[in-house]
Amino acid sequence: MTIKKMRVGLVGSGYMGKAHAIAYRNAMAAFAIPQNLLQCDMLADATPELAQSKALELGFSRSTGDWKSLINDPDIDVVDICAPNFLHKEIALAAISAGKSVYSEKPLALNASDAKEMTEAAERAGVKTLVGFNYVKNPTMQFAKQLIARGDIGDVVHFRGVFNEDYLADANLPFSWRLQKQFAGTGALNDLASHLVQLATHLVAPITSLCADLKVVHQHRPLAQNSDDSNTGVGEVENDDQAHMMVRFANGAQGTLEASRIAWGRKNGLSFEITGTKGSLVFDQETLSELSLYVAEGNPQTQGFKRILIGPEHPDYQAFCVSAGHGLGFNDMKAVEIRDLFQGVVHDAPLWPDFRAATQVNIILDCVVESHEKGTWVEVEQYDSRY
Amino acid sequence: MTIKKMRVGLVGSGYMGKAHAIAYRNAMAAFAIPQNLLQCDMLADATPELAQSKALELGFSRSTGDWKSLINDPDIDVVDICAPNFLHKEIALAAISAGKSVYSEKPLALNASDAKEMTEAAERAGVKTLVGFNYVKNPTMQFAKQLIARGDIGDVVHFRGVFNEDYLADANLPFSWRLQKQFAGTGALNDLASHLVQLATHLVAPITSLCADLKVVHQHRPLAQNSDDSNTGVGEVENDDQAHMMVRFANGAQGTLEASRIAWGRKNGLSFEITGTKGSLVFDQETLSELSLYVAEGNPQTQGFKRILIGPEHPDYQAFCVSAGHGLGFNDMKAVEIRDLFQGVVHDAPLWPDFRAATQVNIILDCVVESHEKGTWVEVEQYDSRY
Amino acid sequence: MTIKKMRVGLVGSGYMGKAHAIAYRNAMAAFAIPQNLLQCDMLADATPELAQSKALELGFSRSTGDWKSLINDPDIDVVDICAPNFLHKEIALAAISAGKSVYSEKPLALNASDAKEMTEAAERAGVKTLVGFNYVKNPTMQFAKQLIARGDIGDVVHFRGVFNEDYLADANLPFSWRLQKQFAGTGALNDLASHLVQLATHLVAPITSLCADLKVVHQHRPLAQNSDDSNTGVGEVENDDQAHMMVRFANGAQGTLEASRIAWGRKNGLSFEITGTKGSLVFDQETLSELSLYVAEGNPQTQGFKRILIGPEHPDYQAFCVSAGHGLGFNDMKAVEIRDLFQGVVHDAPLWPDFRAATQVNIILDCVVESHEKGTWVEVEQYDSRY
Amino acid sequence: MTIKKMRVGLVGSGYMGKAHAIAYRNAMAAFAIPQNLLQCDMLADATPELAQSKALELGFSRSTGDWKSLINDPDIDVVDICAPNFLHKEIALAAISAGKSVYSEKPLALNASDAKEMTEAAERAGVKTLVGFNYVKNPTMQFAKQLIARGDIGDVVHFRGVFNEDYLADANLPFSWRLQKQFAGTGALNDLASHLVQLATHLVAPITSLCADLKVVHQHRPLAQNSDDSNTGVGEVENDDQAHMMVRFANGAQGTLEASRIAWGRKNGLSFEITGTKGSLVFDQETLSELSLYVAEGNPQTQGFKRILIGPEHPDYQAFCVSAGHGLGFNDMKAVEIRDLFQGVVHDAPLWPDFRAATQVNIILDCVVESHEKGTWVEVEQYDSRY
Ligand SMILES: NC(=O)C1=CN([C@@H]2O[C@H](COP(=O)(O)OP(=O)(O)OC[C@H]3O[C@@H](n4cnc5c(N)ncnc54)[C@H](O)[C@@H]3O)[C@@H](O)[C@H]2O)C=CC1
Ligand SMILES: NC(=O)C1=CN([C@@H]2O[C@H](COP(=O)(O)OP(=O)(O)OC[C@H]3O[C@@H](n4cnc5c(N)ncnc54)[C@H](O)[C@@H]3O)[C@@H](O)[C@H]2O)C=CC1
Ligand SMILES: NC(=O)C1=CN([C@@H]2O[C@H](COP(=O)(O)OP(=O)(O)OC[C@H]3O[C@@H](n4cnc5c(N)ncnc54)[C@H](O)[C@@H]3O)[C@@H](O)[C@H]2O)C=CC1
Ligand SMILES: NC(=O)C1=CN([C@@H]2O[C@H](COP(=O)(O)OP(=O)(O)OC[C@H]3O[C@@H](n4cnc5c(N)ncnc54)[C@H](O)[C@@H]3O)[C@@H](O)[C@H]2O)C=CC1
Repeated sequence: MTIKKMRVGLVGSGYMGKAHAIAYRNAMAAFAIPQNLLQCDMLADATPELAQSKALELGFSRSTGDWKSLINDPDIDVVDICAPNFLHKEIALAAISAGKSVYSEKPLALNASDAKEMTEAAERAGVKTLVGFNYVKNPTMQFAKQLIARGDIGDVVHFRGVFNEDYLADANLPFSWRLQKQFAGTGALNDLASHLVQLATHLVAPITSLCADLKVVHQHRPLAQNSDDSNTGVGEVENDDQAHMMVRFANGAQGTLEASRIAWGRKNGLSFEITGTKGSLVFDQETLSELSLYVAEGNPQTQGFKRILIGPEHPDYQAFCVSAGHGLGFNDMKAVEIRDLFQGVVHDAPLWPDFRAATQVNIILDCVVESHEKGTWVEVEQYDSRY
Repeated sequence: MTIKKMRVGLVGSGYMGKAHAIAYRNAMAAFAIPQNLLQCDMLADATPELAQSKALELGFSRSTGDWKSLINDPDIDVVDICAPNFLHKEIALAAISAGKSVYSEKPLALNASDAKEMTEAAERAGVKTLVGFNYVKNPTMQFAKQLIARGDIGDVVHFRGVFNEDYLADANLPFSWRLQKQFAGTGALNDLASHLVQLATHLVAPITSLCADLKVVHQHRPLAQNSDDSNTGVGEVENDDQAHMMVRFANGAQGTLEASRIAWGRKNGLSFEITGTKGSLVFDQETLSELSLYVAEGNPQTQGFKRILIGPEHPDYQAFCVSAGHGLGFNDMKAVEIRDLFQGVVHDAPLWPDFRAATQVNIILDCVVESHEKGTWVEVEQYDSRY
Repeated sequence: MTIKKMRVGLVGSGYMGKAHAIAYRNAMAAFAIPQNLLQCDMLADATPELAQSKALELGFSRSTGDWKSLINDPDIDVVDICAPNFLHKEIALAAISAGKSVYSEKPLALNASDAKEMTEAAERAGVKTLVGFNYVKNPTMQFAKQLIARGDIGDVVHFRGVFNEDYLADANLPFSWRLQKQFAGTGALNDLASHLVQLATHLVAPITSLCADLKVVHQHRPLAQNSDDSNTGVGEVENDDQAHMMVRFANGAQGTLEASRIAWGRKNGLSFEITGTKGSLVFDQETLSELSLYVAEGNPQTQGFKRILIGPEHPDYQAFCVSAGHGLGFNDMKAVEIRDLFQGVVHDAPLWPDFRAATQVNIILDCVVESHEKGTWVEVEQYDSRY
Repeated sequence: MTIKKMRVGLVGSGYMGKAHAIAYRNAMAAFAIPQNLLQCDMLADATPELAQSKALELGFSRSTGDWKSLINDPDIDVVDICAPNFLHKEIALAAISAGKSVYSEKPLALNASDAKEMTEAAERAGVKTLVGFNYVKNPTMQFAKQLIARGDIGDVVHFRGVFNEDYLADANLPFSWRLQKQFAGTGALNDLASHLVQLATHLVAPITSLCADLKVVHQHRPLAQNSDDSNTGVGEVENDDQAHMMVRFANGAQGTLEASRIAWGRKNGLSFEITGTKGSLVFDQETLSELSLYVAEGNPQTQGFKRILIGPEHPDYQAFCVSAGHGLGFNDMKAVEIRDLFQGVVHDAPLWPDFRAATQVNIILDCVVESHEKGTWVEVEQYDSRY
């Protein structure tokens, strides 16, 4: 009997591609994954030259300028999609056809209908899927889930989530594909609020209805300049800088979710406050290795928010460090995600959030757009009950 | 010519009544208000006995069990209303009829129509009015307004405000008038969100439309027990524990506002984040003497939120202390409010927020209820343009 | 039988004089002190004109340019000394001779031998004394003491205290009496570290030995300029900008104490961390209404520093506000001090820290200077065992 | 010509051994180090079995139960010492004899005389050396150094450093070699304060004299129990739980340094505050990706500590992530250290802190012990001027 391996083909080697590359190594050392069972094998990017230089840089053995040849390579077990949003569908469907496991960055698709098509193809083909909603892999977030599940804060009655960054806060940053519907879909909604929607449902309950408001704040941006400075035009921004939602959850809880890509000062400003009938939880991704917990019990004199530093007592921390409070970084969350991927692909463990679960996010994002356009509340279809 | 004085008649001596009593003394010493010009004269409460003991305790010379006799006393210049919400209207209208200046706690009235009636009566009678939206009197908040007004953060594009407390988070706290529509009006909305609405409009721009969601979380509460323990029934809570709003401002900015009276761990959790085109401001009333400011200028390496401790360089701090960062307390904000009242009543300075401005808050609170009931966006009537 | 009253004569109406004036009013309203029993009667300052204008401003009925006449006035019960350090002794001794209670600002004296002389004079005369170490009157600090006393953090094994401000951080601030030994005594040591020494001993145990290091950082400062700009000289700074101590406590605990008046960014930076065998306490005066408590018990997963917001469950808060977390300010601590003074003077309650207790601080400050000069550890005389 | 490689032999695979293993992978992906040039080759531990299982777990190709055979293996270029303190000297001297580069964990040696012997051997042999003072490799710390070097806070006048953890705070934790002089040397001093001494000198200036105080708080600890529970004895703790130093720097600045291994609640509590003539810096390793900067310039109204989140504008961050504020973890600092090691070994870049620089730390630690024993100030020998 041959031992199953995980030979990875990475498509796209920008921001996330590099984060994945680092995380594969990190996961191997942290989680004692044998080197022969996890191989960073081939890297595809837009051109052969780019792919080659990135493969060298990121430690992949082979490279290609054509993602299709990566997919069709018999030695590739997992296709890891770190290409821009609009390519996820085509690449994933091709990989599924080739019988490969697919590990895709989020959001899964540009809309729910594409996401469903991808999910159904994967399920029919029986391939493993995983989507890169990495924030739920953070030991701190896993611990938050544990606390809620075991009732430490009672029944959840409220969720407030914010995901603010300032990567487009400067109104003079040039126009790009990220600002165009056909390539990026929505704006802050897809980029940031998708994470928030995913983790809110995970931590609280399915979202059953919502009412939303989107806004393009900087409506025009300068076109990137030609080398001869001839280009002085502006491009029209097609998607939201800011997104708001009021939501209702299946368990009766209420919530607000919002995201902005123009919120000066916020760099990875994913934060939430969860209120239960017995206590509260507060988290801020900018201090990713701590969680604040308030429990209304014992002497009222000594009640307060407790700042818990994540350590070996909490899920998946000890693999990185035996001492509490030494802090994990962004890439460490991805390493946990890759450990999951490995367990799923090589040891047939269930993978989560898979395409089905990620489709539920796309369904909600579609509802946001619909609610914004209609100015009313919208009921959410429940596609994935586990989510 | 006689020097104008401010002899105060206080109606209601509970939580706010005491805060006002402390603040009158505090204001006199801090702002050098001559003792003969500001007198804590008469105190009215529900019974003569209560009024008498409270007058002694809080340093008022005279007392009465009937607020009408206070209002009609010729030596009273200002009627200070610290009675429950449902009494504001009747007391204020009577005081106005008697030609007295009126200083009322917030919210001004149970609904906009009452508030308008009160405003118009006051304006016809030409009496001075002031409503106790004390948070805008905090030197920190005044400084926030200054920063915005002088453009330090550019044009405001977003406001997120939260006012959470946990005074009713324990589901076993007994039923009371606060939970009944006829006495309290709405719940967290009136108690907490009213402040938020007032300061959002003050700091950003008038709110022109909104969409809202209200929720009673703990639907029944035990009735307060009779002494013989015979009472074991429950009361039905009639107003919101949690309130959400998405809002749009006249200047084009967007915002979310929310309040909860059941948010475990939050004690005076009035916080906001204001995003502008050049920077951001963050404030939290639980650390009331500091403001965080982010300005996107200079070397990107040294940009970050600056924690500014309020001091003598900022409005109205120096009256309390010549050293920066020594901290003001809740009652000190009220002292600033009373300094304003004194300036208005004795030196005829304009008073703000007066009944007209406070009516705008009531209009918005009514829109919230309407939006919640209809499930749609609601346009807001602009009653007070200064607000 | 005549009811005892407390008619106050205030000497000095600068920074602290005003804080006291505010606090007298504040204390009356907050602690229900009858107006006829506490009177802000006479104010003395360096000249009659200054005294008169300050009396008007701060609400004192009478004024004088000669503190001796205040002391000898038969209607004055308590002499409140808010004059510069070097005057404390002379004024206090005169007040004691006249049989008056004395309420003096800290440090009690320029050195231990003066402090002892004052203490013994007061004790012989049987007059009440109180010294303005206000930080221990803060409800938060009282609560810290409670927690330690009842063993919540076990036996104290370590104290680290810092009192940093930046009021002289700018090297171009002009020369003044504060920088001269004859008027001010030591520098940051007297101004700031005196508080730290007082509260460390209070919270932990008597200090039995110490080793210290003092430093003048800015050795010269420009003389204050004459109006005709003729003065361009510099003055030589005679006392410490920074002060360090390593200490050992009677209970076996160790500690470090340090103070600086040139620590840029610190405005009221009195902070400490106390480690016990079962937990820890952290406090920072710049957020004076909160205390952080770590207790090593229960599930290790949920251990962390708990941020406790001071409220009505804690000592002396409820007098100011019935809601938790609404925050007290610097002047509120002084109001608690004055409530104590009133209880002591009018109801014969014990007063603390009195001259004897404050003398222990002066003894320790003298040891600091001695240790610095000798470069060795110094044993501390135990004058006041209660301290 | 053959390309130089770095084939690593790791000795010791406990806490730090694993951190190094993770960091080698991390460094390769983050800093684009070609896989063929950096090889995790052989791992030595106390027994062949342990070594073998650890090699598998941590991704080393070969293993041995005898570190001498690792050192003598011709394919090993760098000997990485992650064994307990008392073994550093013997292993390092052997590696140097074999002409290998040596990367040793801190503290370099049990005392200064051993450290000098090691330094001189290495320098004579001309081998590269590096010591694992990883905290100075943190991008945040590198940025702090930059800020100081370019004068943003003026001339440094004060340093306060604390390194507190609670790994031995529980008095019932069993006796171990860490508590014995012959194996561990000093206690909190060697473990924690050594880092503090290293970075204080790096950030400020050489330490020229000091006065110190050490204390064993828990003098006995239970012996680790035999399996049959027969063992009920206690061991006598031989080294310090708490360590204090007052220091003077070559540039005239003053400082205090302290460390504790029994400070409940502190998990990686390495923090400092550096005061300069124009501003201040504050850092806390428990939030390792942020730095607080106060600069006394511009409008006093808007001065405050600025919380800077580390990002691509700062040294060595971009290799890990292109977005600011996404956070690095403890192991990422080690990856930077290994990048340095690689540059030194393969590209002959200068390595720092090398044995000579680390010897200066040992010299200072020896002075601490001497000062504690004598109760006086001690002058520090200046062995390494770069340090
Ligand atoms: N999980 C998370 O926290 C984050 C997820 N993402 C997601 O990752 C995905 C990639 O985003 P970034 O890495 O930020 O973008 P990027 O622009 O930095 O990188 C995209 C990469 O795809 C490559 N690419 C483009 N067209 C290609 C083609 N036809 N064939 C092969 N490669 C092609 C580009 O050359 C580039 O290497 C997006 O879906 C995004 O939403 C991005 C940032 C954070
Ligand atoms: N500005 C602020 O931050 C706050 C404002 N408030 C407002 O202050 C007002 C009073 O609230 P609290 O002081 O919390 O209530 P409370 O229940 O503590 O005090 C109400 C007082 O009114 C008295 N009262 C009731 N009926 C009366 C009558 N017929 N005649 C005379 N006195 C009567 C009661 O005996 C009691 O002394 C409310 O409108 C509330 O919204 C309350 C808390 C904070
Ligand atoms: N407890 C605390 O937190 C603080 C205590 N203090 C203490 O308060 C005392 C006063 O300090 P500040 O108020 O800061 O000083 P300040 O300089 O602001 O005020 C001193 C006052 O004494 C007056 N004075 C001077 N000579 C006088 C004389 N011969 N007769 C009558 N009045 C005279 C001055 O005119 C001035 O009004 C000092 O002992 C200081 O250590 C100061 C600040 C804080
Ligand atoms: N830079 C930093 O932040 C830190 C540095 N350290 C340093 O790292 C070194 C190791 O400490 P830890 O990893 O915490 O200790 P540890 O006890 O976790 O690991 C020590 C390792 O050395 C092995 N070992 C013991 N005797 C050996 C022998 N004769 N031959 C080969 N291997 C042997 C042990 O089996 C174990 O694998 C120490 O010098 C310590 O000061 C430790 C923690 C943090």
